[in-house]
Amino acid sequence: MIYLSVEKVRSFVYSMLLKADVREDVASSVTEGLIQASLRGVDSHGIRLLPHYLEGVKKGRINANPKYSFCKTNLSTGLLDADHTFGHAAGMEAVKRVVDLAKEAGTGHVAIYNSSHFGAAAYYALEIAKHDMIGMSFSNTDALVQTYGGKKPFLGNNPMAIAAPCKEEEPFCLDMATSMVTFNKVRQWREIGQEAPPGTGADLEGNETTNPHDMVMLSPFGGYKGFGLGFAIEMLCSLLTGMPYGPNIPKMFEAPMNQKRFLGHFLIAIKIDAFQPIDLFKKHLSQMMSDIRQEPRKNSQVPIQVAGDPEKKAFLERIQRGIPLSPKEYEMFKKLGTMDRIDIDEY
Amino acid sequence: MIYLSVEKVRSFVYSMLLKADVREDVASSVTEGLIQASLRGVDSHGIRLLPHYLEGVKKGRINANPKYSFCKTNLSTGLLDADHTFGHAAGMEAVKRVVDLAKEAGTGHVAIYNSSHFGAAAYYALEIAKHDMIGMSFSNTDALVQTYGGKKPFLGNNPMAIAAPCKEEEPFCLDMATSMVTFNKVRQWREIGQEAPPGTGADLEGNETTNPHDMVMLSPFGGYKGFGLGFAIEMLCSLLTGMPYGPNIPKMFEAPMNQKRFLGHFLIAIKIDAFQPIDLFKKHLSQMMSDIRQEPRKNSQVPIQVAGDPEKKAFLERIQRGIPLSPKEYEMFKKLGTMDRIDIDEY
Repeated sequence: MIYLSVEKVRSFVYSMLLKADVREDVASSVTEGLIQASLRGVDSHGIRLLPHYLEGVKKGRINANPKYSFCKTNLSTGLLDADHTFGHAAGMEAVKRVVDLAKEAGTGHVAIYNSSHFGAAAYYALEIAKHDMIGMSFSNTDALVQTYGGKKPFLGNNPMAIAAPCKEEEPFCLDMATSMVTFNKVRQWREIGQEAPPGTGADLEGNETTNPHDMVMLSPFGGYKGFGLGFAIEMLCSLLTGMPYGPNIPKMFEAPMNQKRFLGHFLIAIKIDAFQPIDLFKKHLSQMMSDIRQEPRKNSQVPIQVAGDPEKKAFLERIQRGIPLSPKEYEMFKKLGTMDRIDIDEY
Repeated sequence: MIYLSVEKVRSFVYSMLLKADVREDVASSVTEGLIQASLRGVDSHGIRLLPHYLEGVKKGRINANPKYSFCKTNLSTGLLDADHTFGHAAGMEAVKRVVDLAKEAGTGHVAIYNSSHFGAAAYYALEIAKHDMIGMSFSNTDALVQTYGGKKPFLGNNPMAIAAPCKEEEPFCLDMATSMVTFNKVRQWREIGQEAPPGTGADLEGNETTNPHDMVMLSPFGGYKGFGLGFAIEMLCSLLTGMPYGPNIPKMFEAPMNQKRFLGHFLIAIKIDAFQPIDLFKKHLSQMMSDIRQEPRKNSQVPIQVAGDPEKKAFLERIQRGIPLSPKEYEMFKKLGTMDRIDIDEY
């Protein structure tokens, strides 16, 4: 692994986006979203997506210079037309709106439409949590999860994140897809020639397989319950936003790169002191997390973790040591910068 | 099985509650909640709980004549002190409040504290959905789910429900606990001498077991993801309501029946036409459900179901044929009524 300093990677990503004529505020939201994901160890949604996004800008899928249109529809609700820009930028624009709504009404709810790939859902929930609110973020995605009892995928692996501020600790943050694993994990198994664990996905016929090369769809997490949760998220992100659902959503990698995605997201912000004194809530949340971590362990060598603990650990390591890239990824970034005479090592 | 007409059971349950000096409005909410659960096939939360509740009233756990206190804390938020009454009554009182908030602000959020057993979470979400809103309901419960990576239970099997209105069909309704199965299922396996499926629960030492007699805690559904979701629900229902969490919550069956439960619930109502025209939303939701049901089946004999489909099917059957009771349950109800000279067969 090659470790690159956060500053170096941040400058590289931001410069590459600007060179592609992405507007500064948009480039900034995308950069911070990718860096945050990479720092938190969520590599599937980190900087490795940059080439894909740049191609999307170049070919017309992603609008680099969006004209947002926000419509406040009630005291606590609104809709944001993201004008087909990056999901990260759309999401961050919506975070501002949802936080403003919650400041005024106690809670805020924003449906985002005409968007593109959301990145890591945690990005938005964590940003809302900075305002002493519980943040929730949801996104639809293209069809990828095998229908429970079916042979084919219909719903996406619709992710959700819930974050809340703590005392003397980074916020609690649950960020999960509603599939057992992400498809990026399948790609990783293919690359390193590893068998997939049972129950993670199925082949073209819808039969469970542990051969990652045969795996073309993912299993919902927790069987019919996870599948039901994925459906509910699709309802928020497709039906409340007016966007397409299920197999009608253009696919991230397979659709032509000039094809807009028409993705929908949904954000919720809950002002904590509309319910409990904020200091008390933070104290209790930290206490509850600490209590769980101290429960008797199944295996004395394996610590009990609360949602978000692995990401907090990765963050602390990577903020020190840098963001790891495989030699292959490193070469890809070097090459990516060449045309624009941007060298990742020069920052 | 003995099948009793819905009218008969409804009158019996209501009369028994009134005889126990439960106030009429409270008795009515409890009766409808139990009947709905029994009709929807959710027997674990149906009329079989009546004896337990009556004992709770008699011994002082449940307040039969509560003085509710509602505090609207912001345009879309409020807290309801349920004064230790039935969860059903507290929940239905909160539904009125949350719907009113949503009518005024686009969405409503109510935290309920000093409550007791919630019954089926679907009851409240479905009631909210009647107002052309998306309804969500959550509850904490006493410690029962094995901590992921741990030996003991900390979180409850914290249930959640999400309901939304459709066109020409009963509302979509996902109602699920965050455990693989409910403990009532374990009791059922014990009674009929059936082995439990692998991965459903563990013994006193925290080791997975398929012997229902050894099973004292439940596995979270979907591993660490379901466990994380359970944690997030505990955050809403314990920390936002100011109620105890995890092992600090008095247990439903093991705690003395004069011990109040101090349970917390959380309701969300989202006015659909704050986002999309209601008719369009309903049409799209029905279409999406229909599309999924028509996907190619894994097994041609087993229909693909959307969340809530099994409950809809049970409802249609039971509204015709009546609510089924085992001979043992039937005798229990007969006996229960004897002291108060209420005969379930006389209605």
